[in-house]
Amino acid sequence: MPSVPDADTLAFTPIHALAPRIASGELAPRTLVAACLERIARADPTLHAFVAVYGPQALQAAEACGAAIAAGHGLGPLHGIPIAIKDLCDMEGRIATAGSRFWADRVSTATATVVRRLLAAGMVVRGKTHMVEFALGAWGSNAAMGAPWNPWDLAVQRTPGGSSSGSGVAVAAGLAPAALGSDTGGSVRIPSALCGLVGLKVTAGRISNHGVVPLSQTLDTIGPMTRSVEDAAFLFAALNGPDPLDPATQAVPHGNPLPTLKRGVAGLRLGMVALEELQGTTDAVAAHYREAGEALAALGARVEPVRLQGLGFMDLQRQTGTLIGAEGYHVHRAWIERSDAPFDPHVQRRLLAGKGVSAADYIEVLRHRARASAEMGAFLADYDALLTPTLPLTAIPLAEVDEDAPPAASRFTRAVNYLGLCALALPMGFDAQGLPSSLQIIGKPLAEHTILRIGWAFEQARPLLAQRRPELSALLGAKGRAG
Amino acid sequence: MPSVPDADTLAFTPIHALAPRIASGELAPRTLVAACLERIARADPTLHAFVAVYGPQALQAAEACGAAIAAGHGLGPLHGIPIAIKDLCDMEGRIATAGSRFWADRVSTATATVVRRLLAAGMVVRGKTHMVEFALGAWGSNAAMGAPWNPWDLAVQRTPGGSSSGSGVAVAAGLAPAALGSDTGGSVRIPSALCGLVGLKVTAGRISNHGVVPLSQTLDTIGPMTRSVEDAAFLFAALNGPDPLDPATQAVPHGNPLPTLKRGVAGLRLGMVALEELQGTTDAVAAHYREAGEALAALGARVEPVRLQGLGFMDLQRQTGTLIGAEGYHVHRAWIERSDAPFDPHVQRRLLAGKGVSAADYIEVLRHRARASAEMGAFLADYDALLTPTLPLTAIPLAEVDEDAPPAASRFTRAVNYLGLCALALPMGFDAQGLPSSLQIIGKPLAEHTILRIGWAFEQARPLLAQRRPELSALLGAKGRAG
Repeated sequence: MPSVPDADTLAFTPIHALAPRIASGELAPRTLVAACLERIARADPTLHAFVAVYGPQALQAAEACGAAIAAGHGLGPLHGIPIAIKDLCDMEGRIATAGSRFWADRVSTATATVVRRLLAAGMVVRGKTHMVEFALGAWGSNAAMGAPWNPWDLAVQRTPGGSSSGSGVAVAAGLAPAALGSDTGGSVRIPSALCGLVGLKVTAGRISNHGVVPLSQTLDTIGPMTRSVEDAAFLFAALNGPDPLDPATQAVPHGNPLPTLKRGVAGLRLGMVALEELQGTTDAVAAHYREAGEALAALGARVEPVRLQGLGFMDLQRQTGTLIGAEGYHVHRAWIERSDAPFDPHVQRRLLAGKGVSAADYIEVLRHRARASAEMGAFLADYDALLTPTLPLTAIPLAEVDEDAPPAASRFTRAVNYLGLCALALPMGFDAQGLPSSLQIIGKPLAEHTILRIGWAFEQARPLLAQRRPELSALLGAKGRAG
Repeated sequence: MPSVPDADTLAFTPIHALAPRIASGELAPRTLVAACLERIARADPTLHAFVAVYGPQALQAAEACGAAIAAGHGLGPLHGIPIAIKDLCDMEGRIATAGSRFWADRVSTATATVVRRLLAAGMVVRGKTHMVEFALGAWGSNAAMGAPWNPWDLAVQRTPGGSSSGSGVAVAAGLAPAALGSDTGGSVRIPSALCGLVGLKVTAGRISNHGVVPLSQTLDTIGPMTRSVEDAAFLFAALNGPDPLDPATQAVPHGNPLPTLKRGVAGLRLGMVALEELQGTTDAVAAHYREAGEALAALGARVEPVRLQGLGFMDLQRQTGTLIGAEGYHVHRAWIERSDAPFDPHVQRRLLAGKGVSAADYIEVLRHRARASAEMGAFLADYDALLTPTLPLTAIPLAEVDEDAPPAASRFTRAVNYLGLCALALPMGFDAQGLPSSLQIIGKPLAEHTILRIGWAFEQARPLLAQRRPELSALLGAKGRAG
């Protein structure tokens, strides 16, 4: 068994560095998978990232990957890489709870297209990750299944961010090099931000939703959560493209961001949303945000302050909530009113709020969305991307979450879904408590290549951010409860 | 002034026969327009087809058309042809009531794309035609504005069919050679059927709805109402095609049905819906329907009895009603609840029923629609078209209409809109009272060319149907009230 420092180094090596080592035979997939399993065994009883860990199956798959390499077989780009899957993606014959104890025994009868695509690229399935019930919550709490523990503070349980909470914690703690999340109002970006990761929220229609438990048919997107921009680009390349099983994807061609990823940002025009409009932003996040703008300007981008008030960018929380509530209630209405079921009461309340939305109000929101998207499109014509913080704050203690208030966590993310845009969240600093803050780079529809390119340049300019890791030796130094 | 028989002949000459006479200079547009105006002056005080008649303007336009021909200018295909426009199409600076006394003074600020296209093809605007208020009614009644009189019975006022009632009456009575109607659940086909005309309900997205007062954003379509299939094809060719102002049209290429119109039906496979499934069909309509099937078989088509029960084709009235109600209420909700406004009480009641539709029910109907359309698509893969009667009956006395019952008039038409299909209505017989019955030829999505081709062949085989005209000498023999 490798010593803890060795396993730690391996656990935090990015996919784009692991892949050539696996391809060359230098690194056996089994070694990588076993290292992750060992960390999970020690840390996950505390961190609570995984609903299910596929240990023996993952080792078996890793050995098969190793044998294939030894035999000189052609490799997929993710050959032998273990990846964690948010537990709302179907895998035939496996549990898919969608974060609900009510669905504790729900076994999938088909496999999500995103899982199929990663498997075709060589992925080893690491396991299924915890999430906010039915993906409807920004903080990462889950009254019935338990909230994952944000690894950046082992003393106080802090919000991992939601709804892809377990995916965020798993990747941040080095339990898997990457994970899949889903983002309807921020659920990839928020846990990525609070856990210090890179999270890509794609344009709706870019990546198939087939086989994914829906929340909002209009806004749902699947996206990668990684520890580097290049890894996010890597997964995006494997995931995106038309799928006959999801009509929304059919008019969108496959995109490969890798050829343009490292072109830099010289000459790109970036609109930096004025702090006055970013209500509730803490001093630390504001300082990191200013520094991020300066860093991008130093790289040659034209960073210009912009105000979006006329576009109502920050006022779209309500419309987005109406849309998600109405569509989410439609998905779950056959059971969500049951008083005998163990639903998270906050999620149940949010879904039941969707019951009261009339068809006319729903139609009006869809029409407003079309108009607002067109207005934002006209505004964005002059810019290559917009910048905001991903969240106004860093991770707060779970005990301080007010489940009844409009979540501050999604204040800057929801409008991106509503307006049909894409966005990349990535670390931009650490506050005095060592908690990560996050920059949101917002792109035009289908402009994932551009925001990944900007993100990569920023990340290169701030290498210390990417190298920082949560201090987990208290967990990893001895076997955990499950060990 | 031409004698009545001459004017009668001219008034009933189809566009495809008028156009070459106008192009050659044999027929002055002014003569045609004046003949129609003369008939309108005599007959319309009784028939009540027109909300507004643009007499001087039409004569002026006709003279300009004649001058252009004399000067050898290139002609559009509808050069000098007077066409009546349903009064929900906007024309800048003109009244557009949408059949509502509440909107008696509503002046349009833009011009509908369909009107622009016909004008570009040379049309002379004949006037705006009466309709069921807000296009929501199948019989053609209008409590506040008055119902047009079906010209096939001058003794008893019978239903003209709705909602494009005035367009149907105007064309049937020879007040215009063609008209525009709109069809959300049958509103082109039903008045075409009850008035003995050809009516084309196109696939949604085929013809721009820009500048047309909406009822259901999902189901609304604009279509021609004519006295021959060739004229319907003529207008369809001028009307269809992408319009940047109506996003629904953008993925549908322009289609020209004329090159294939006269190819005949030999070898085409037509599914003839069994009479057992056509609830409420009168004996006369059933007899005409059987004869129509035999006539098409004699032309070489493979006419096969089919049953659609498993597809619920005749059971989609309720879902279609939910969709139209919800979307129509959304359009009109800012005023439809006013108790001080002169709304038709039946239309007001129907729209208010849409107020109670929840977002979840609306979403469910849209999803059901997608599934049902896919099922029908699989069924239709084996057929070139389906046949039904357009209505189960012929025109009934207006006094016998039960406004509160589900309208028998739309029983066979609504599913065509709901399932995203196209259909052609055309005369298939006359009952003992001399009232026309109608055949509905239902096509696959975007298969307008095929149904027009089938309709043309049927029409050629039954020339006596097309030659029959309503007996209007009691109106035309002497000046009418407005004369």
